[in-house]
Amino acid sequence: MNKPPTIIDIPTPSLRQMQNYIREKQPLEIKLVTGDVLSGSLFWQDVDCLCLNGADGRNITIWKQAIAYIQPQS
Amino acid sequence: MNKPPTIIDIPTPSLRQMQNYIREKQPLEIKLVTGDVLSGSLFWQDVDCLCLNGADGRNITIWKQAIAYIQPQS
Amino acid sequence: MNKPPTIIDIPTPSLRQMQNYIREKQPLEIKLVTGDVLSGSLFWQDVDCLCLNGADGRNITIWKQAIAYIQPQS
Amino acid sequence: MNKPPTIIDIPTPSLRQMQNYIREKQPLEIKLVTGDVLSGSLFWQDVDCLCLNGADGRNITIWKQAIAYIQPQS
Amino acid sequence: MNKPPTIIDIPTPSLRQMQNYIREKQPLEIKLVTGDVLSGSLFWQDVDCLCLNGADGRNITIWKQAIAYIQPQS
Amino acid sequence: MNKPPTIIDIPTPSLRQMQNYIREKQPLEIKLVTGDVLSGSLFWQDVDCLCLNGADGRNITIWKQAIAYIQPQS
Repeated sequence: MNKPPTIIDIPTPSLRQMQNYIREKQPLEIKLVTGDVLSGSLFWQDVDCLCLNGADGRNITIWKQAIAYIQPQS
Repeated sequence: MNKPPTIIDIPTPSLRQMQNYIREKQPLEIKLVTGDVLSGSLFWQDVDCLCLNGADGRNITIWKQAIAYIQPQS
Repeated sequence: MNKPPTIIDIPTPSLRQMQNYIREKQPLEIKLVTGDVLSGSLFWQDVDCLCLNGADGRNITIWKQAIAYIQPQS
Repeated sequence: MNKPPTIIDIPTPSLRQMQNYIREKQPLEIKLVTGDVLSGSLFWQDVDCLCLNGADGRNITIWKQAIAYIQPQS
Repeated sequence: MNKPPTIIDIPTPSLRQMQNYIREKQPLEIKLVTGDVLSGSLFWQDVDCLCLNGADGRNITIWKQAIAYIQPQS
Repeated sequence: MNKPPTIIDIPTPSLRQMQNYIREKQPLEIKLVTGDVLSGSLFWQDVDCLCLNGADGRNITIWKQAIAYIQPQS
């Protein structure tokens, strides 16, 4: 039985990089278009969202549309 | 009779997480790109919107395009 | 003769809720991503816009992309 | 020979309303997501843009993505 | 050999207007959603970007998503 | 074996220009819709993101949706 593939099935460099950050529990800074900077490590990603394990232990579901950039913590 | 599937039919992790929040009436904070933070529990979701049962009892229809992130209340 | 369906043909909860607000002439507050809050009752909706019968009697065509949230007036 | 139809071929209420504003040279106020308010009458519309005949006689090509709302001048 | 057409192949009024500005090296003002106003003449356009020959001679690749409006310099 | 092409396969002028910047390690300024200006040279691009080798040596994954414009450093 065939299931239609979703966009997330195409292994683009950015999806692979996020996948690496998830596997390595890399501490990250995520700058949002609101100006907020969120810190933590990634939990999962899908076509709409990233889930961040925040500094205070809460899971933060971030909409990708609101992301300006992501970088490893210095 | 076949109805065309909508995007909402694909059970991505973020849709499932919202569905869990709806079922558990989890108190949430929703940060919008306007800078507003809305509080309440989710009522329903669809491809365009989330419906929040707000702190004052009113139903707030939130356009997903305006969401920066969602987290459980601390 | 078959006409191709438009996205508006799928009766999602948010489209139905807007349709109810139109039928009931429900007084609403609409918060935009600009920070503006518009007041009035809805006239019609389509895939791109909502038309608001504004407080001063003018028809305001609101682009959905600019909507943060909609709630009944308290 | 058949040309593929563009989205603009579907006569939604908002496209019809803009078409009426064009035909009637209706003086309009256009609020943008930047906070700017532009005044003038519409010249043409397409799937991406509206062209405004501005107050100083210059043609202003407005990207629809930047429109918050449009209303007749009071 | 057939190449799939891109959206840019459909000659909408706004694409034609930008093409005219390119051919005529028309001095332009481009207002962005950031509030920036860039000045110069257009070099090329594609489905995602416009390339501006800026006032200081540098080529500025502008993402269309960030454009509020374009008008001829007065 | 055929793999479905991704949008990145169509060599538009803007994709080619970014590819040139990557090959030449051109120092760039990237203005974001948040108002941030990031400096560095590009590493890779895909359909969603650009990866910048930032001034402090960290890799910054920039979402294209947040880009206003890109220009060579003066």
